[in-house]
Amino acid sequence: MVEPATATQAAAPAVAQLKDELDIVIPTIRNLDFLEMWRPFFQPYHLIIVQDGDPSKTIKVPDGFDYELYNRNDINRILGPKASCISFKDSACRCFGYMVSKKKYIFTIDDDCFVAKDPSGKAINALEQHIKNLLSPSTPFFFNTLYDPYREGADFVRGYPFSLREGVPTAVSHGLWLNIPDYDAPTQLVKPLERNTRFVDAVLTIPKDTLFPMCGMNLAFDRELIGPAMYFGLMGDGQPIGRYDDMWAGWCMKVICDHLGLGVKTGLPYIYHSKASNPFVNLRKEYKGIYWQEEIIPFFQQAVLPKECTSVQKCYIELAKQVKEKLSKVDPYFDKLAEAMVTWIEAWDELNPTAAAVPDGKAK
Amino acid sequence: MVEPATATQAAAPAVAQLKDELDIVIPTIRNLDFLEMWRPFFQPYHLIIVQDGDPSKTIKVPDGFDYELYNRNDINRILGPKASCISFKDSACRCFGYMVSKKKYIFTIDDDCFVAKDPSGKAINALEQHIKNLLSPSTPFFFNTLYDPYREGADFVRGYPFSLREGVPTAVSHGLWLNIPDYDAPTQLVKPLERNTRFVDAVLTIPKDTLFPMCGMNLAFDRELIGPAMYFGLMGDGQPIGRYDDMWAGWCMKVICDHLGLGVKTGLPYIYHSKASNPFVNLRKEYKGIYWQEEIIPFFQQAVLPKECTSVQKCYIELAKQVKEKLSKVDPYFDKLAEAMVTWIEAWDELNPTAAAVPDGKAK
Repeated sequence: MVEPATATQAAAPAVAQLKDELDIVIPTIRNLDFLEMWRPFFQPYHLIIVQDGDPSKTIKVPDGFDYELYNRNDINRILGPKASCISFKDSACRCFGYMVSKKKYIFTIDDDCFVAKDPSGKAINALEQHIKNLLSPSTPFFFNTLYDPYREGADFVRGYPFSLREGVPTAVSHGLWLNIPDYDAPTQLVKPLERNTRFVDAVLTIPKDTLFPMCGMNLAFDRELIGPAMYFGLMGDGQPIGRYDDMWAGWCMKVICDHLGLGVKTGLPYIYHSKASNPFVNLRKEYKGIYWQEEIIPFFQQAVLPKECTSVQKCYIELAKQVKEKLSKVDPYFDKLAEAMVTWIEAWDELNPTAAAVPDGKAK
Repeated sequence: MVEPATATQAAAPAVAQLKDELDIVIPTIRNLDFLEMWRPFFQPYHLIIVQDGDPSKTIKVPDGFDYELYNRNDINRILGPKASCISFKDSACRCFGYMVSKKKYIFTIDDDCFVAKDPSGKAINALEQHIKNLLSPSTPFFFNTLYDPYREGADFVRGYPFSLREGVPTAVSHGLWLNIPDYDAPTQLVKPLERNTRFVDAVLTIPKDTLFPMCGMNLAFDRELIGPAMYFGLMGDGQPIGRYDDMWAGWCMKVICDHLGLGVKTGLPYIYHSKASNPFVNLRKEYKGIYWQEEIIPFFQQAVLPKECTSVQKCYIELAKQVKEKLSKVDPYFDKLAEAMVTWIEAWDELNPTAAAVPDGKAK
């Protein structure tokens, strides 16, 4: 049986790499007791807490953490009419935190995620592994059978072209989950007792032109490289769909990374996901998405961005245009979503006026 | 330190799945003492031994194994002038074994590969894992973050399209190596002491349109689905290149699998690779390949097979044509190789006259 680590308090405080360059973004509706367990790993970092739901409720944050907290009133005040692009009553609201951050890197985690143990019983410093992933290159153009060639004890295998061994910058690090796997409602219903107990000691680059289901539970990214693509869409209150926020971001982000020559890694680190959400509630939120994704995914698989799209913002605006053109026939919701995508970029640029100074990515 | 398993003799004989449907192909120049260690796992199966080098030498095979052995004289006698397509003094000769087999599945292994141990210390039955890989579908069209969704305790994660959950037939299972990693000569020279000690408990599908370096050391495939694409090229004696036999097969095979909608898996099982080959000798064999692959790989990445190519043979003949057209400018060797590719298919069809009865693959 996989269990969460218990002795993290006793763990020697980790060397806090990138302490001044990384924010931890946490969407929540409850007191953040889960941070106690993460204290040795998170305390040196700044937290951005995005409070979802009733703004009059007080969220307790354990002592000793450095944080800023935004509730719905704050979001409305800061963004004005553009606040319409930020979801309410859905963890999609977390992307507001990406927007207000002033740091180069973001790590985002759900408040039901605890510290996992590696097979030797050692508490896993998830953030440290994400940083390793982000600071080493990715290899999207050719598959390395020994996984991440930049890890200690690994390299490129025979037959790997030398011209590709420098890799490309890594924009996203997607971590996994022990205990409760990230299943959809139908799978939860069919396999209520299934737990993920398999620790796979690997990090790998998701190849170019391959899409994947990005989960927002345990995720890190380079805000300067890909931030504006990390929009979690319109979900929850007043929307016909939920639980597709991270998927939407993942599809958009991957198409843009492929276009700009950026890398996406998945695998380590694991967190311990404590509690399965209610499958009946999930089914209600998901059921349209389960149907729609059969058309959305081919859309993203076929999406081509023109050469002129040399920045993430330009790519994203172009993608919004294509969503409007090609997905509105699936449901009028996509019209609204496409407009929100544009609003999101406008809001991003307003809050990040220096973003234009960031060098453009290299278009494929 | 990773060590090979020692107590395999004591292991209970494995349940020999597919015993009448699978041949084990071993290329060798020496006595096959390494089979002692594999006895509990291999003894129920039929072996095809391809003796390379001096045909007058006697290769000793441990008692109790059921085998047929072919030396160069046999190959010349059986194939006549078409024997020119089978390499000499290079392990590429193993593909003759694929051709003379009458079974549905092939497992091929090098004679310096021993039984590896899993992290619990248990001897790994590599063949059993390859069979599991081949008998379960692949998922080349969308990446599953929890790896092979068909393994026990795993499934498709949230956001994986339901229409793709049936997967496609698996044509190839590519296993890995503990201890001596499969590095090229330059990497061997730079990192002479590097050992692979990381046991990654995963099997995954290599996504569509992604190429990888296929190693022939520990490899299994479905001969009926993909056999004629598993030609290991012209290497060794009289050729300007060696150690690219498996790479060549891997590139051709992957392009054809992608076209026909077949799957390729990599990961488990591990074997214990006992001894690094001489990096100086390897460098002499490889150096042209290291240069050429910079042009060969883009060629395969861009190769498109027309719809009319509905069988592996048709795909392979078309690929031979494209090799002649586009790679001959790299070196006249590719002219010769393209012709050998055609000869290989002719020889295959001659030895496998019923192959025409195998249903055509589904073209993309």
